[in-house]
Amino acid sequence: MLHAVIMAGGSGTRFWPESRADRPKQLLALTGGRTMIQQTVDRLGAAIPAERVFVVTAARLVPAMREQLPQLPAGAILGEPCKRDTAPCIGLAAFLLSRRDPDATMVVMPSDHAIEPTAVFQSAIQQAAALVDSDPKRIVTFGIRPTYPAESFGYIERAEAIGPGVYNVARFREKPPAAVAEQYLKAGTFYWNSGIFIWKAATILAALKQHQPEMFAHLQTIAAADGKPEFTAVFEREFAAIRGVSIDYAVMEKAEKVAVIEALFVWDDVGSWHAIARLRGVDADGNTIAGKHLGLHTANCVIRSDDEHLVVTLGLKDCIVVHTPDATLVADRRDEESIRRVVKMLEERGWSQYL
Amino acid sequence: MLHAVIMAGGSGTRFWPESRADRPKQLLALTGGRTMIQQTVDRLGAAIPAERVFVVTAARLVPAMREQLPQLPAGAILGEPCKRDTAPCIGLAAFLLSRRDPDATMVVMPSDHAIEPTAVFQSAIQQAAALVDSDPKRIVTFGIRPTYPAESFGYIERAEAIGPGVYNVARFREKPPAAVAEQYLKAGTFYWNSGIFIWKAATILAALKQHQPEMFAHLQTIAAADGKPEFTAVFEREFAAIRGVSIDYAVMEKAEKVAVIEALFVWDDVGSWHAIARLRGVDADGNTIAGKHLGLHTANCVIRSDDEHLVVTLGLKDCIVVHTPDATLVADRRDEESIRRVVKMLEERGWSQYL
Repeated sequence: MLHAVIMAGGSGTRFWPESRADRPKQLLALTGGRTMIQQTVDRLGAAIPAERVFVVTAARLVPAMREQLPQLPAGAILGEPCKRDTAPCIGLAAFLLSRRDPDATMVVMPSDHAIEPTAVFQSAIQQAAALVDSDPKRIVTFGIRPTYPAESFGYIERAEAIGPGVYNVARFREKPPAAVAEQYLKAGTFYWNSGIFIWKAATILAALKQHQPEMFAHLQTIAAADGKPEFTAVFEREFAAIRGVSIDYAVMEKAEKVAVIEALFVWDDVGSWHAIARLRGVDADGNTIAGKHLGLHTANCVIRSDDEHLVVTLGLKDCIVVHTPDATLVADRRDEESIRRVVKMLEERGWSQYL
Repeated sequence: MLHAVIMAGGSGTRFWPESRADRPKQLLALTGGRTMIQQTVDRLGAAIPAERVFVVTAARLVPAMREQLPQLPAGAILGEPCKRDTAPCIGLAAFLLSRRDPDATMVVMPSDHAIEPTAVFQSAIQQAAALVDSDPKRIVTFGIRPTYPAESFGYIERAEAIGPGVYNVARFREKPPAAVAEQYLKAGTFYWNSGIFIWKAATILAALKQHQPEMFAHLQTIAAADGKPEFTAVFEREFAAIRGVSIDYAVMEKAEKVAVIEALFVWDDVGSWHAIARLRGVDADGNTIAGKHLGLHTANCVIRSDDEHLVVTLGLKDCIVVHTPDATLVADRRDEESIRRVVKMLEERGWSQYL
């Protein structure tokens, strides 16, 4: 059976001040009426119904997730007691799913990406599941054809084709420097790593056992306590003892039998305020506006407020203005990366009320 | 006796969103702890004690004025039922003062300028009063030595000296275009008109009777009702019937016997957000900050918030950011003049809650 495992533990500091420690990007409706996590679940449609969706998030976010995803069954949202990157998260999900469905096929995906159209995504999932069914030890990923030499994504280098738009993977590549990204783009045989993987739970568990035996042992102990009164205590103790590491590093870079499907859907990682202009579109002046706004000589700006608080911009070009009740950001679009530094500075100053 | 007449009816739209219809510039503490009107009264010190200070403002602002100026006697704050420029305001003050003190000397001044040091200002007032005493028909003004070819001020052209730093006035000049302002600056015989005048109440009344007989008649009718139950009704009816006109146009440009004293005090009309940087000073990056702020790569900005709402700026140069509870302004400093247009646009859109 096909199960979705949605990784929803990200902190999304790049969307400060809209994103906060207890309301990260995946809980925000950045691109429309539904939040990112809601869109992620909606997108699965009939391909993976709600009763087979499993969400792993941070413990403190579980109540908000439950509120946003009332259609999920009880126990479908797991809160990690601490952050340990993607490999332990995925491994634990594999253990827990295996106990319920020993033959489970997992579709692992981030909770905060934009993907369209839904129908294309769903048939891509079916295609990947069929590839796993045809060879149960296979790992399938989705590769996004790069449109510019991005330095902020991992890349997948493809080898020979094994079907129409499906290739064996030659190698996973970490985020490259600009010159290397340029080469990847030119070569035409590299994809952006979408972070979406399809495999049998048994396959990823075997890989973890082989490559990450310590992590595997901790996860096994946690899974053994599933449904027992001591579960929370065991989870907290064992999970904290794991060394955090990404699934790419822990497994993918060492795995054999990995296939990549070239995605036919449109994908966006919604990595920064820039993405909002891409995804929501711009008006005649190049602006993307949400909330009450009045502008004069304003161009190429992303401006966000609510329906009550008025933001007025005069002579503003290439800026991001985000008003929230207790904090306002005004940033040059080219300086957007510094938002992460701001969040660090707020921590250092002890201004935790704004985090 | 020396009386102060403070004109405090201005709407100060250039300080939106801090200034609002019911909280214009003169009621704001833009340059320090005390509001502009409070500073204006404070500045008079012993030269003109509170019991001889008269404030003319808009009727709707009277309660706020009373709150900010508790030291003034009852009846010292007059609220105009409608806006009619400076001549009717000054003329009415002259009528009312004359009834209490037939030999009154008036020092007429705006309520929203910055002047320092106080002691120099006070001795300038004494010097002007002495000039009026020596020739009771004389009108005395203060001229500010121009530092740049300002187009936003009226100018006073001086004639021959009649004492150290005191000159007869050759002519009043309206706000000049750039090229003319340049000539005025070069000539060295032009001052900015500070809007501060000293004269006998009887002198200005005689001038109004001569040059503005209709206005004079209306004002006379209002003054005759002073202290009577029908005063408010008469004031409203007669004042509304007056054609509004400035004191410069109504009297000064036609007056003889006008002297100008070159001001030795430092004067600033606090005409826009720019002035805040001038008056409050700038930090090492050229920024003038009030309220909670965190900046990275931020230079030559005026940033204002309160102690609760955090404003973060990234890569921002030469901008004005003003946060208030219901509205935020983000403006290029060079586009500051457009703030007036914004206020008009808010009116047109019916967004009166922000005015």
